[in-house]
Amino acid sequence: MEKILRIDMGAEGGPAFKIEEPGEYAGLGGRALTSTIVSREVPPLCHPLGENNKLVIAPGLLSGTTAAMSGRISIGCKSPLTGGIKEANAGGQPAQMLARLGYAAIVLEGKPKDDTLYKIFINKDGVKIIADNNLKMLGNYDLVEKMKQEYGDKISCISIGPAGEMKMSASSIACTDMELRPTRHAGRGGVGAVMGSKGVKVIVIDDTGMKMRSPKDPEKFKDATKRWVDGLRKNPTTGQGLPAYGTNVLANVINEAGAYPTRNFSNGRFEGTPKISGEFQAEREKERGGLPTHGCHRGCVIRCSGIYVDKDGNYVTKQPEYETVWANGANCGIDDLDAIAQMDRLYDDYGLDTIEMGATLAVAMEAGIASFGDAQAAINLIHEVGKGTHLGRILGNGAAITGKVFGVERVPVVKGQAMPAYDPRGIQGIGVTYATSTMGADHTSGYAVATNILGVGGKVDPLKPEGQVELSRNLQIATAAIDSTGMCLFVAFAIMDQPETFHALIDMINAFYGLSLTADDVTELGKSVLKKEREFNTKAGFTKEHDRLPEFFKKEPLPPHNITFLVEDNELDQVYNF
Amino acid sequence: MEKILRIDMGAEGGPAFKIEEPGEYAGLGGRALTSTIVSREVPPLCHPLGENNKLVIAPGLLSGTTAAMSGRISIGCKSPLTGGIKEANAGGQPAQMLARLGYAAIVLEGKPKDDTLYKIFINKDGVKIIADNNLKMLGNYDLVEKMKQEYGDKISCISIGPAGEMKMSASSIACTDMELRPTRHAGRGGVGAVMGSKGVKVIVIDDTGMKMRSPKDPEKFKDATKRWVDGLRKNPTTGQGLPAYGTNVLANVINEAGAYPTRNFSNGRFEGTPKISGEFQAEREKERGGLPTHGCHRGCVIRCSGIYVDKDGNYVTKQPEYETVWANGANCGIDDLDAIAQMDRLYDDYGLDTIEMGATLAVAMEAGIASFGDAQAAINLIHEVGKGTHLGRILGNGAAITGKVFGVERVPVVKGQAMPAYDPRGIQGIGVTYATSTMGADHTSGYAVATNILGVGGKVDPLKPEGQVELSRNLQIATAAIDSTGMCLFVAFAIMDQPETFHALIDMINAFYGLSLTADDVTELGKSVLKKEREFNTKAGFTKEHDRLPEFFKKEPLPPHNITFLVEDNELDQVYNF
Repeated sequence: MEKILRIDMGAEGGPAFKIEEPGEYAGLGGRALTSTIVSREVPPLCHPLGENNKLVIAPGLLSGTTAAMSGRISIGCKSPLTGGIKEANAGGQPAQMLARLGYAAIVLEGKPKDDTLYKIFINKDGVKIIADNNLKMLGNYDLVEKMKQEYGDKISCISIGPAGEMKMSASSIACTDMELRPTRHAGRGGVGAVMGSKGVKVIVIDDTGMKMRSPKDPEKFKDATKRWVDGLRKNPTTGQGLPAYGTNVLANVINEAGAYPTRNFSNGRFEGTPKISGEFQAEREKERGGLPTHGCHRGCVIRCSGIYVDKDGNYVTKQPEYETVWANGANCGIDDLDAIAQMDRLYDDYGLDTIEMGATLAVAMEAGIASFGDAQAAINLIHEVGKGTHLGRILGNGAAITGKVFGVERVPVVKGQAMPAYDPRGIQGIGVTYATSTMGADHTSGYAVATNILGVGGKVDPLKPEGQVELSRNLQIATAAIDSTGMCLFVAFAIMDQPETFHALIDMINAFYGLSLTADDVTELGKSVLKKEREFNTKAGFTKEHDRLPEFFKKEPLPPHNITFLVEDNELDQVYNF
Repeated sequence: MEKILRIDMGAEGGPAFKIEEPGEYAGLGGRALTSTIVSREVPPLCHPLGENNKLVIAPGLLSGTTAAMSGRISIGCKSPLTGGIKEANAGGQPAQMLARLGYAAIVLEGKPKDDTLYKIFINKDGVKIIADNNLKMLGNYDLVEKMKQEYGDKISCISIGPAGEMKMSASSIACTDMELRPTRHAGRGGVGAVMGSKGVKVIVIDDTGMKMRSPKDPEKFKDATKRWVDGLRKNPTTGQGLPAYGTNVLANVINEAGAYPTRNFSNGRFEGTPKISGEFQAEREKERGGLPTHGCHRGCVIRCSGIYVDKDGNYVTKQPEYETVWANGANCGIDDLDAIAQMDRLYDDYGLDTIEMGATLAVAMEAGIASFGDAQAAINLIHEVGKGTHLGRILGNGAAITGKVFGVERVPVVKGQAMPAYDPRGIQGIGVTYATSTMGADHTSGYAVATNILGVGGKVDPLKPEGQVELSRNLQIATAAIDSTGMCLFVAFAIMDQPETFHALIDMINAFYGLSLTADDVTELGKSVLKKEREFNTKAGFTKEHDRLPEFFKKEPLPPHNITFLVEDNELDQVYNF
């Protein structure tokens, strides 16, 4: 990862690229790299869809190595959804391939003079930028099929669907998985719209002829990776729960806890949960000949994904994630798993964030556009988005815009981004993360659910405000660091409770780069990432007033606990005291 | 004006009112009163359409007296359009009538439990709140006709059209004029949506049996009002220009100055200006039997309004204002005055802000929804808004939302509110006001055009940044004070250059209330209003980063002067240094 690829899509005479030394960015990966480049190079008040925004795509520090779980890719920019800085990351194959090709980052800059659409092909021989208007408005599935025909099946793709081309704020960027399907998405914050504004439909990566990246100290690295895998296998969550049932193992747990947002955050329990739970889902996949345990990228040992098939055993989509099943299930009052799988497939194809869209459908249902529980209506609405009808344009721009357009008061967003699958009244710690994250409402940026509900990393009562700020702060710092390694965030379950597994991670980085980082150094890295992000947001106009949950969380008690969000504003303001 | 009427629309058992002493609000009128009540009583982070927002309707200090030009009514709330504090004011008859009935303000609070629609009737005998779902979705014209049938023709009305009922952020509140037509609108910031969220369709006011308000010192008051009227008649703008051609006298002037925003702010001159100018308009009105010189409320001596009739001499609408003609004319590339008059009529009927809507249509045209210059398409789009189709919902929520939904980059808004009829590149002083006003982009909050272009109140070069900050600051302070008197802002033309006329205004206030205010006191009043508003906005999350023009004003030079906005950010931050 000794080089950065910069592509100026607005260059005179058509897009042009240059390959640079990393320079001041050397030694950074993943989120640390995307957030550093964005905060240094993007004017915080620029238009997110304008020539001055940049889209930064960066594998993690350990991507492309033999280290297990190192396949996350970070995508950063100024977000069209929040107006602040954004890092969204995804699994799949591109991180590994890009890293093996030696790229620490791809930076898409400028803006094309016209509406020509481009594909970018990267392999060991270099970079090609090719105009191809035949790709216009292709869904991600058809697009990848076409790329396979053109470039063979040793590739991986980073692409946008019609939603990104239409510059919708709920649009995602798809990364292909091991089966070369566009199922792993950098979902949040409208990153797809920024790629669309750059006129780039797809980046095709072929690492044929490249080897695994070599560590500075192969012996130490090998030893550390072994301890690392042992730790992940030993941990009950990463070794058993996630492999067996996938992320949706949480449905029953969070529903039981009374924090499973139902019908647009009006209840904390959904009566239809048994029909959409992870256990039910895995059972169905097994019965039908699908697969309940599967990795999203080579080198994954947790394998929380799976393959969802229809009654006849035909592939529908990758196993829908917990967040997807919730957003388009309980949150819309829908208990039909086949319908939810179909919705997941459509989101992947159109290139849409399943969380933002599920939250948006629920807001639209509250506005009377469809009825809660009407799965067919929900599917029809997703097609409206894919077709770009006027209604589709509204919905495709997310929950906040939809709420504004239809005059809805109960809109669960922070900084314009919809909340994920945990009600902050039932799990107060995640409310602190939602409120204060630099990303807008985002569970992955400080997963307090672990400690509030799952008893990982200690225990903090989910229904009480005490201890939540410290918990969220520590998790946000740790997450910013993990997001920079290229490691899947689920490794956190193991490293939070197994000091030896955390040390194995640090040992891998040290052995690979010939460093001698300590745990404190990792913490400092996390802090520095957060500080850069927060500084960008401040310059973009964010204040402590934006670190707040919407009013209704303080006004409306959530059944069954009949509790409101209790963490005081002045406590929220302590999260960034480091 | 010894009492405040508070109506709790969310009271148990249905809406309930109480009449209070003004207490801590005594001595305040107009904008000073609305902004003080909003800043003290409305939580800055509340949902603008929720129970915690309040709609405050307040005549000015001199409304209901014999003082000429005292017929403005201020309407304040937290704005659904900007998210900040809002004061929008209007002419027409309600200010005079409410003041004579003794009301310093009406405060609509809470939120009805269901979607019942109410009318409120106020006369000398008291207040009645009556459920009347037959009024649902009536246009303002039909509504007022119905009220006339029910309550006679001695009334005035404050009402919303379908747009306010649908809680659109571009919705206005209509006030009836001397002919009992709903033509004078508190247009900006979506105040109509807040009235709609309170479930109030119309406030009917009948001041039968009430007298002119009596001054403490009748002789001194009479003497001052005479000097006041003399000053207004003597001034060339208020005595000749505005009466003869109305506000649209500016079209040729601003076009000539190269600051007449054309086709969504892409040019500073419109080739069709001669066909939509004030001179052309007045000529046409005369020819057809309309009226080029007419007041909007009794006691007006400037009479800048008029009556616009069709080819057969039938009433179409009040004489469209300069801003209306520009927004829906030059800014949309439309040079058909009859079409613009029809649009004005539709806006008044549906209850929409003509500035926000014209700016929105232009953004929609840039998005390809219609062609620039296509008047029929523009009219059709307004009907979409009135009908509340999905497209109409988008447009009815203003230019910023429309730009977001359609992914348009050139969107001329500040704090979410569309810019009026002066390009800030061609008139740099108004750019300072747009950027820094507490209201979002608003020409009336500090009309630097006067000094930049018209040579009123001195002379500051419109194309240079020097002197603009001081100019805008002084004008914003003076305006906040004038908006509190109930005086039409056009009196500023006279008082800026005629010290004796300014003194006549102060003498009127002193004689009426038995005070001894000085010019400095008036300045202090203006400052205190701005400070309260700015404090509210800060608590609502606004920072100096929100006191900026959109990026394209600094990037794209405006023909014909080929100039960008030149006032530096750090200079903008000096506006509120007082």
